[in-house]
Amino acid sequence: MRIINEQVLRGNARSEPLRSLREDALNILCSAVEAVDPREAVFRVLTSEKKAVCIKDLTINEPSRIIVTGGGKASGRMSEAVEMVLGNRISEGIVIVPKGTKSSFKLNRIQLAEAPHPIPDESSIEASKRIFSLLTDLEESDLVLVLISGGGSSLMTHPARGVSLEDIQRVTTLLLKSGATIHELNTVRKHLSAIKGGQLARRAYPSQVVSLILSDVVGDRLDVIASGPTSPDDTTFKDAYMVLKKYGLLEEAGESIRRRLEAGLKGEVPETPKSGDKTFRRVYNLIIGNNFTAAHAAKKEAENLGYHSILLSTRVEGEAKYVGMVCAAIANEISSTGFPTGRPAAVILGGETTVKVLGEGRGGRNQELALSAAMKLDAYQCVIAALATDGVDGPTDAAGAIIDSCTIERAREAELSPEEYLSNNDSNTFFSTLGDTILTGPTGTNVNDILVILAA
Amino acid sequence: MRIINEQVLRGNARSEPLRSLREDALNILCSAVEAVDPREAVFRVLTSEKKAVCIKDLTINEPSRIIVTGGGKASGRMSEAVEMVLGNRISEGIVIVPKGTKSSFKLNRIQLAEAPHPIPDESSIEASKRIFSLLTDLEESDLVLVLISGGGSSLMTHPARGVSLEDIQRVTTLLLKSGATIHELNTVRKHLSAIKGGQLARRAYPSQVVSLILSDVVGDRLDVIASGPTSPDDTTFKDAYMVLKKYGLLEEAGESIRRRLEAGLKGEVPETPKSGDKTFRRVYNLIIGNNFTAAHAAKKEAENLGYHSILLSTRVEGEAKYVGMVCAAIANEISSTGFPTGRPAAVILGGETTVKVLGEGRGGRNQELALSAAMKLDAYQCVIAALATDGVDGPTDAAGAIIDSCTIERAREAELSPEEYLSNNDSNTFFSTLGDTILTGPTGTNVNDILVILAA
Repeated sequence: MRIINEQVLRGNARSEPLRSLREDALNILCSAVEAVDPREAVFRVLTSEKKAVCIKDLTINEPSRIIVTGGGKASGRMSEAVEMVLGNRISEGIVIVPKGTKSSFKLNRIQLAEAPHPIPDESSIEASKRIFSLLTDLEESDLVLVLISGGGSSLMTHPARGVSLEDIQRVTTLLLKSGATIHELNTVRKHLSAIKGGQLARRAYPSQVVSLILSDVVGDRLDVIASGPTSPDDTTFKDAYMVLKKYGLLEEAGESIRRRLEAGLKGEVPETPKSGDKTFRRVYNLIIGNNFTAAHAAKKEAENLGYHSILLSTRVEGEAKYVGMVCAAIANEISSTGFPTGRPAAVILGGETTVKVLGEGRGGRNQELALSAAMKLDAYQCVIAALATDGVDGPTDAAGAIIDSCTIERAREAELSPEEYLSNNDSNTFFSTLGDTILTGPTGTNVNDILVILAA
Repeated sequence: MRIINEQVLRGNARSEPLRSLREDALNILCSAVEAVDPREAVFRVLTSEKKAVCIKDLTINEPSRIIVTGGGKASGRMSEAVEMVLGNRISEGIVIVPKGTKSSFKLNRIQLAEAPHPIPDESSIEASKRIFSLLTDLEESDLVLVLISGGGSSLMTHPARGVSLEDIQRVTTLLLKSGATIHELNTVRKHLSAIKGGQLARRAYPSQVVSLILSDVVGDRLDVIASGPTSPDDTTFKDAYMVLKKYGLLEEAGESIRRRLEAGLKGEVPETPKSGDKTFRRVYNLIIGNNFTAAHAAKKEAENLGYHSILLSTRVEGEAKYVGMVCAAIANEISSTGFPTGRPAAVILGGETTVKVLGEGRGGRNQELALSAAMKLDAYQCVIAALATDGVDGPTDAAGAIIDSCTIERAREAELSPEEYLSNNDSNTFFSTLGDTILTGPTGTNVNDILVILAA
């Protein structure tokens, strides 16, 4: 990852110690994102001697064929690493990547198919059907490598037979409007799909399946990342039916969905495969990179830079502005009492916050978090930086923002009211004006967000 | 502090490890509150050999008279310690305590006056006038001990000459309704008072003044605790005037207030004393107990019990349910990766959260925090307990609540929907039904809240 405006960000410091803290925070963030580069991560696991389930071992067993498939925003770069290591031993491969990105990858054996993101269309189905053709008549001696990353759920769209894409999209919208939880939504969608909820793994049975997964889900639930194409699903047709009933959507859901769910209830179409099913006997799901990988690399870099370092949690969720207040509370504590650790101190957090948008401004969760933290930071030598690891923080051109103990003073001088920008969810305008957004462009990876607190 | 229902709380554990974690969490909370017992805290400082400003030193200089005054919810117990140490060396004393509590203190030299809390009336003014009479014609050789604790601002009510209590109360209500910040509110109130904003110290000039302060303010700002009767005030009559102007309340504020502020603007009445003013040349403000004292004692107790312990921050603020989510995120991280510290692990937090009440239930910030944390806690061996150190969590009979990895399971079995109780701000009903509220009764102290996260 390259921070485009790094010079500006350092230059915005009001003192030499703050300049140095800003530089260190940016270096720490870069180390975090580099540790989850999809190519590096795949390369690491494919060449590792240490892994319990090691691809080397698998290929030593000389599978008859190695087939590569999968999809997601990072799966193109993951494909490159697979080819780099396995080269001509790959028999065939089709991996789905976001529209317009195909040409940026150099591949010989694996074909890339494109599909739009986040709203699927017919081309998504077409691409997924190609994957299914590839996964036909596999044998025990075959190895299927599945490259899964964030966005995989919409890129790999394959409605169950008889279900229309329009109906799936309509019921998704209706459920979201009705206040259904993400778990309820997924329960329904898995039962309208031919690929989600372990069904890709079933298609590949009885071959050996190894899924290499870059997690964009806080907590890394395998059945949630990309809707778990190679993971057991513990929800049922009945659960899906009850969700639609609960929100009074059985009628509105559309004919093709009603028919599908009824067939499922009657056992006329197979359930998604469950834990213990023979489908998963030879399926290995490996998380090759996640928020922890990034946060741990951040911690190590902070230690290299001489900070007493704490990795606090990689599962932080909740409203961004309140998480920002907690970050400021930690920074203030370090500065005034030397707890939880002595200075110079680094505290690393990860996860993904949310913003309940009430205002009309332009912002992102990381920038809003940073703004809120700035407002609570006391006048100490502290820097807090918050970054979306994919380089895109909300509907803005920024990846995040960096603040220090002088940010609010600088804002007041520029006649920016932090209170007003925060309440209008206008954090991007606030930080753009100050020149304190972190600009990276798309990083090619996504493991949610990383927050760094430094106190000198 | 005694936990009335400790047996029940332990008994609600579903496993032996959870029972043991619950017991430890309760012991840790007790240690925290005991460390900020007002009598102990005053006793400690009055007899300490270590303090830079040590009362022993002061009294060795043999002041001609020792006068004791002040007010607050804990100031009765603070008075007891002062008498215990200084006894007959006290010349005179008047301390204001909440109505109905006077008889619970045994004092010989210091008189207690009662006033209502939190809404002052004529008896508050009467009591404050007695303090002012006491602080008449003091000399350099006199020592005034001021015992300040939470609630002191309303108990020590002394409107400036010509200002009516009714007008002060009306303008307070109007400002709150207009969305004024607490800082703006205090700016106005200090300029309508004869005692707030350092004016008690000015009254005691040129004597030596030692304020012993039990802080109920997150961050311990001396000018905020009890409205800072012995602390410099950096706000001005002009600031106060501008606040009323900003909210369009100059007319509505009432005749007595307008006259007071105009006199202040013209310099006809003195400003509150500022930093550097001779008033403060011989004034020492000592925080004798605060959230850090309690949190640090909690950390020590956790260490005694064998936990790897972290004191994360004593300045946590923000919406309770989101802070609860952060607590769960920390617990989940410890359980799954051993960061930020190895198991058995204890993480201590302090501060004071808030609840934006949208539902119609009965709850408190600590109980709401605990409910939200329970909903995010994964199925590990974890306990989280949240406590208001004064024993009163919102308008409930509980001091807080304790949750563990089985709380949600137990709730579902009892047909309690955690989601519904949380969204209805009905955490007290939820935990009362489960028997997991922490009941202590009033503890006689208040240093905000303490949160304990334990993971085995």
